[in-house]
Amino acid sequence: MVERRKPIWVKEATEKIMEWKKRGEIEWVSIDDCDSRFLAEPLIADHDVPPFDRSPYDGFAIRSCDTLLASSKNPVQFEVVDEIGAGQVSIKQLQEFQAIRIMTGAAIPKGADSVIMLELVKEETSFDKKIITIKRKVNARENISFQGEDTKKGEVLLEQGTIINPGVKALLATFGYHKVPVAKKPVIGVIATGSELLRVDEPLVPGKIRNSNGYMIESQIIRAGASIKKYENCADNLESLLTTVKSALKECDIIITTGGVSVGDFDYLPEIYIKIGAEVLFNKIAMRPGSVTTVAQCDNKLLYGLSGNPSSCYVGFELYVRPIIRYWLYSNKPFLRKTTATLIKDFPKPNPFTRFVRSKLGYDNGSLFVEPVGLDKPNVVTSIAWADCLMVLPGGTKGYKTGDLVDILLLEDQAGSDESWKERQKSSR
Amino acid sequence: MVERRKPIWVKEATEKIMEWKKRGEIEWVSIDDCDSRFLAEPLIADHDVPPFDRSPYDGFAIRSCDTLLASSKNPVQFEVVDEIGAGQVSIKQLQEFQAIRIMTGAAIPKGADSVIMLELVKEETSFDKKIITIKRKVNARENISFQGEDTKKGEVLLEQGTIINPGVKALLATFGYHKVPVAKKPVIGVIATGSELLRVDEPLVPGKIRNSNGYMIESQIIRAGASIKKYENCADNLESLLTTVKSALKECDIIITTGGVSVGDFDYLPEIYIKIGAEVLFNKIAMRPGSVTTVAQCDNKLLYGLSGNPSSCYVGFELYVRPIIRYWLYSNKPFLRKTTATLIKDFPKPNPFTRFVRSKLGYDNGSLFVEPVGLDKPNVVTSIAWADCLMVLPGGTKGYKTGDLVDILLLEDQAGSDESWKERQKSSR
Repeated sequence: MVERRKPIWVKEATEKIMEWKKRGEIEWVSIDDCDSRFLAEPLIADHDVPPFDRSPYDGFAIRSCDTLLASSKNPVQFEVVDEIGAGQVSIKQLQEFQAIRIMTGAAIPKGADSVIMLELVKEETSFDKKIITIKRKVNARENISFQGEDTKKGEVLLEQGTIINPGVKALLATFGYHKVPVAKKPVIGVIATGSELLRVDEPLVPGKIRNSNGYMIESQIIRAGASIKKYENCADNLESLLTTVKSALKECDIIITTGGVSVGDFDYLPEIYIKIGAEVLFNKIAMRPGSVTTVAQCDNKLLYGLSGNPSSCYVGFELYVRPIIRYWLYSNKPFLRKTTATLIKDFPKPNPFTRFVRSKLGYDNGSLFVEPVGLDKPNVVTSIAWADCLMVLPGGTKGYKTGDLVDILLLEDQAGSDESWKERQKSSR
Repeated sequence: MVERRKPIWVKEATEKIMEWKKRGEIEWVSIDDCDSRFLAEPLIADHDVPPFDRSPYDGFAIRSCDTLLASSKNPVQFEVVDEIGAGQVSIKQLQEFQAIRIMTGAAIPKGADSVIMLELVKEETSFDKKIITIKRKVNARENISFQGEDTKKGEVLLEQGTIINPGVKALLATFGYHKVPVAKKPVIGVIATGSELLRVDEPLVPGKIRNSNGYMIESQIIRAGASIKKYENCADNLESLLTTVKSALKECDIIITTGGVSVGDFDYLPEIYIKIGAEVLFNKIAMRPGSVTTVAQCDNKLLYGLSGNPSSCYVGFELYVRPIIRYWLYSNKPFLRKTTATLIKDFPKPNPFTRFVRSKLGYDNGSLFVEPVGLDKPNVVTSIAWADCLMVLPGGTKGYKTGDLVDILLLEDQAGSDESWKERQKSSR
């Protein structure tokens, strides 16, 4: 008999899974290994930046008052009394008409209140003395980077949840974070079901296909920032699948199965959920592809039953698994980055369900354009390779046409959105 | 004495480095380890997709001619003579008014030319026979995914140089690539110079700062997809720096030094280039920051002398090191992705040099907006953390204002551009 399932909105499905969100445990990793992870604590300045008044240029530290009357007609001479390399500190106190040679980044010596750039002075040696000639007035405080002008000690520079890019890593180094607080990556168990599945290294035989969904999901997991625990492909056999799911529940933080969630005779997942005592949060969503995406929870762990269709599986992951992973990792923008773009291809066929169409984004002249990639049939796996966004076409009685402004969700973006995509208004069903 | 250097255009600098581009050696890595790398050979279908005529739904395989007269007023009964799970093949040949139960993905049995979905039939058992009732006409070829309809055997599905995303990984699995051809990552030697530099785990002392540039560059190298070989910070000492550079030339494919390329007394890089017999390609570029970016080649290896200023160092890497790495990795779009956006902040100060301003991209209503982040001073490291693009403001006598359309280069993007940013017209100097 065919079970009749009641579809829920994308908005509701997202809310239901986000009720089970949690932050990961904090671990301190070497600064060498923190790239693309998220700060699990705010980044705080452990000192002023710059830590001392310093010279932003190669030049000479001087007293500006000595240049008051300097001009091309009235060049003024200074005696060079010391030389400060970067990392060195001068013990001299600058006196009238004295200058100290100073390198980029070095500390301003006592008595000096300005720096004149190397290119603006004439250097010469006279009777064993080094002399420079200055032909312009220099203002007090000119060419000095002052202590704390960039950042004060104790300041929160970056909030918890910031993704670690090269600039963040530079800040971590500046402030002595040789260990960096990040979330332990969640371990996602991946169980591909289906007697038709071959391993990638097996030759094709009649009726069978290689397990591509498993690899796709693993790549999505890596892109989202989590770890993978792979289980052997499970044939469509209730007992072996049950055993595997039970092990995965012990060994993983989140479990994904692919296939077996439809209403066919070999779709055992619904029965598995009953046997392990899981609470099914939903098993039908008003969307295409991915309408059979099923999510259950057991012992506070989410179990995702994604469709065996590649595109349904792909979209189900990005909409419902990824935000849980990103939140776990301390991201405050766990959802796919959302924006709008102008459609450049007609999409005439209406659909009562909201569609998430694999698409490609284009930029031109300050605007965003989007077009679907390949045939948008659920089993055309090639189009997933080309897609860099999902175009969202809310369900209704009309199609879409060139020039329409449509919502898009970026797939390769790391920044994310703090809000998920949701239906704008609920029509009654 | 101050050496006078002649600046070259960004366009010329890019052309000069790209003369030394080369592809990396190919290695075959496990499909488990190929994420975010580039295909070093085209991806070819080793079989038709689908590999056989199959059902896209759970349902019953039938002969469409038997449904010619079926309607709600004239229901037609079929005897269910077999059942095919995914991965199974039926040995039965379908006869008049027979049906075979078929699962999603299973091969269409002989004699059948269509599938009716499970939801559209009534199932019952009568005298130990399984019977289904159909109340509509089914067309020939309905609900069948035909062999090869997605892809034909031998077809090139993805070109060399395609980045491996989850969709590409699914294709690799589908076509049996348990080993994937990619470029061996280039090893980039990183040598930070400067007596002022402390290690990240050292306490601050007067006149010194922690080496943040080294970590930033390493993070940029990781983001670009290459490997790092780290050398101990070199104090501003000619002999030790020379020894380190010589080792790096043996051990690395590309060498980056930070600091020491200016015209100050402790800037030893120019001398090092002479001592190792390197050819300096350029040592001054008409850009800000990063004007002192120096590139030399020695034994067909590129040596980059990046500025010690964080933002100069950052921009120098993204414009001149990254494309060499991405090309090495087989990318056909090795340059930063280029587009345009509307400026939403005045930038009144003109500059004779082209500026690459650390900025943040915004999307709104199908358009792209850009604004500079933080103070754009070369030593404000915090702004690099916030930037997701570089806004390019060509040099001239005027500033820029809100509403201007400006070029931007995306920093977090993986797709890239096949062309580098270049000056639109050369003014005479």
